[in-house]
Amino acid sequence: MASITKVSPFAPGELVPLPPIAGVKIAVAEAGIKYANRTDVLLMLFPEGTQVGGVLTRSKTSSAAVDWCREQLQHASARALVVNSGNANAFTGQRGREAVEATAAFAGEAGGFEAERVFIASTGVIGEPLDATKFSHVLSKMAGEANEDLWHDAARAIMTTDTYPKVATRRAFVGNVPVTLNGIAKGSGMIQPDMATMLSFIVTDAAVEGHVLTELLRRHVKTTFNAVTVDGDTSTSDTLLIFATGEAAAKGAPKIAGPDDPEAAAFSAALLSLLHDLAIQVVKDGEGISKLMTIHVEGAESDEAAHRIAMTIGNSPLVKTAVAGEDANWGRIVMAVGRSGEAADRDRLSIWFGDIQVAKDGLRDPDYKEEQGAAYMKRGEIEIRVDCGAGGPGRATVWASDLTYDYIRINADYRS
Amino acid sequence: MASITKVSPFAPGELVPLPPIAGVKIAVAEAGIKYANRTDVLLMLFPEGTQVGGVLTRSKTSSAAVDWCREQLQHASARALVVNSGNANAFTGQRGREAVEATAAFAGEAGGFEAERVFIASTGVIGEPLDATKFSHVLSKMAGEANEDLWHDAARAIMTTDTYPKVATRRAFVGNVPVTLNGIAKGSGMIQPDMATMLSFIVTDAAVEGHVLTELLRRHVKTTFNAVTVDGDTSTSDTLLIFATGEAAAKGAPKIAGPDDPEAAAFSAALLSLLHDLAIQVVKDGEGISKLMTIHVEGAESDEAAHRIAMTIGNSPLVKTAVAGEDANWGRIVMAVGRSGEAADRDRLSIWFGDIQVAKDGLRDPDYKEEQGAAYMKRGEIEIRVDCGAGGPGRATVWASDLTYDYIRINADYRS
Repeated sequence: MASITKVSPFAPGELVPLPPIAGVKIAVAEAGIKYANRTDVLLMLFPEGTQVGGVLTRSKTSSAAVDWCREQLQHASARALVVNSGNANAFTGQRGREAVEATAAFAGEAGGFEAERVFIASTGVIGEPLDATKFSHVLSKMAGEANEDLWHDAARAIMTTDTYPKVATRRAFVGNVPVTLNGIAKGSGMIQPDMATMLSFIVTDAAVEGHVLTELLRRHVKTTFNAVTVDGDTSTSDTLLIFATGEAAAKGAPKIAGPDDPEAAAFSAALLSLLHDLAIQVVKDGEGISKLMTIHVEGAESDEAAHRIAMTIGNSPLVKTAVAGEDANWGRIVMAVGRSGEAADRDRLSIWFGDIQVAKDGLRDPDYKEEQGAAYMKRGEIEIRVDCGAGGPGRATVWASDLTYDYIRINADYRS
Repeated sequence: MASITKVSPFAPGELVPLPPIAGVKIAVAEAGIKYANRTDVLLMLFPEGTQVGGVLTRSKTSSAAVDWCREQLQHASARALVVNSGNANAFTGQRGREAVEATAAFAGEAGGFEAERVFIASTGVIGEPLDATKFSHVLSKMAGEANEDLWHDAARAIMTTDTYPKVATRRAFVGNVPVTLNGIAKGSGMIQPDMATMLSFIVTDAAVEGHVLTELLRRHVKTTFNAVTVDGDTSTSDTLLIFATGEAAAKGAPKIAGPDDPEAAAFSAALLSLLHDLAIQVVKDGEGISKLMTIHVEGAESDEAAHRIAMTIGNSPLVKTAVAGEDANWGRIVMAVGRSGEAADRDRLSIWFGDIQVAKDGLRDPDYKEEQGAAYMKRGEIEIRVDCGAGGPGRATVWASDLTYDYIRINADYRS
């Protein structure tokens, strides 16, 4: 990937602080996998009894680490997470599988638990063999040094072309006991997650069974990580994992045993909010982004249809370049709606930029003035609302970045 | 659209000459619809008895002209074609419909035939009302001046962001009588035709029934116009029409009454070759193109599956930018195959750049050297071959342009 010189205009001034979560220890290190002078390995250690849930890429060419996580998720029990950046360990065949097994074995040895309790994620170049021996000494050293207060460092260690680390935290009350949810994520190209983003990890002290964690993620990714797009591409490595230590149970928090249990409601809402926060951060750091589009579609036959229409708009190179060029070119939105394949009535279609109606009942709104649109498009965050005219109850919202010279610069440069 | 300063590197040195087709008269004019100092209206007049076939965009927001053509194609009988550039007359509601009817009436009056025999296509900005009164005097003047030898001018008059006119001609023998097929086409953004390209018109003196013309187009667009992509977007106005004057019957050519008749074979082959020629010309003039990709996929479950995999590769912004950057980044091809949703076996996947095998049985080919790939990527025409490993008989070829700074420049500029 190319060197990044330009930070996203949406980078936060400073990172929100993440509170420690009792018993969760973090270490980062420089293993020199690909990058020089930066951390590229993250180790998280979880207390005994930690449950895990996850959703993984549906790519047919998933990485060795994704395959491993899919297998271990059946047990729903975790003691560690190892993430490396710089090499995706994807399309590396049997050697890739062996690299994952070796990494899990090193981490298990370092922490004193079974290799099967170690969850692994890798991100970076596809098709290069990953030399897991680089982790052997690093991981045991990391396990010795790990401490509870390194959340920002964790987010930094998993970055690739990201221009800022992505962190978020939420608090919820489960049976009157406060629980914490901390999350980190990374983007920032190859992003139209299908089940999950490239990489995101959530940790909570709530007591939640693994299958409930997975079910809650499944429900919430639809309107969060699966509703953002940078370039329409889906990674071989998309991984979203949530670890629940259950430590809050010692303070009296009831165990959440079903996704629809009354105890689950506040936790579920906090998780949704956290995932939404992280997903928006990912798209706001989309490669080369200059503007964020929020695309609302209504009047579709179903929520799924509305989602597909919104994604077609958000992925259209012609819409994305128009937004980048501050051109209120709503004709390209009409095109994208028509192209989506979903039911839409051209002669009832309406389009708004923010509160400005530009098209109405299949025609340019007679009251619309080009200057209004031009002025609106100068904003950093552009809201596009479309009633596709099919008269249905379906609605959806999608967040997308625009398509700029910088996207080309970042992606057309040599890998070296 | 932006002013175009850079001509496609694939522009032909000079245009191939197109022979006149007896009885087919052409005129072009400057109606001043949008562009200054360039022709923007094309009129073609056909002799009595001319049959017509066509395929039209499947967009749900199709233009008024497309709706009109769809209606008139039921009669399969044509006397004129009117095309304007600069305004697509799409998303213009009842006024758009009225503009089409007025244009047809003007042309019918000028030529002395029914308005329903007039086929119409419009290309350019979406959502702006088209003032058809501009055509009223122009068309009668054009009808008076029309002559048989203006094929290159015809191709030029329908251009929008095209950097060169697209023309092609073929000859076939129908029952030992030579017949001619002339074709013109235009692109060059919003191109992933779905049924047809943006605009292409074929004229022949063969005697072919309208329903046969439509059926032959349907068969042949699959591997020609529907197998090229610039930006994955589909126009509201995609129109491919073929007009058959039948004049060759006077010289003894048998009438072609069925797509599988023995008389149809040579004509059908010539038509396929012509469509292929024009489709490649369209993608070679794709907005901002610097390199042409030819993407072959084999080993898929079906030809349709292979086509979808190839299109996913050809539309991937990450693949397109890698090619633009002369980066032999085959990992992004693996990603696109995985993302396509079609059956593929990661551990049997093989990839070639030209004759250079880069991936083999789910791994980087041990004999592959990065320098080979780097050298190959310097070419103007890049061949990518993928065996997706599903072990099926499905295969397909797709042609795609890359994604460059110039694409952004062309599309991110203001419309004005």
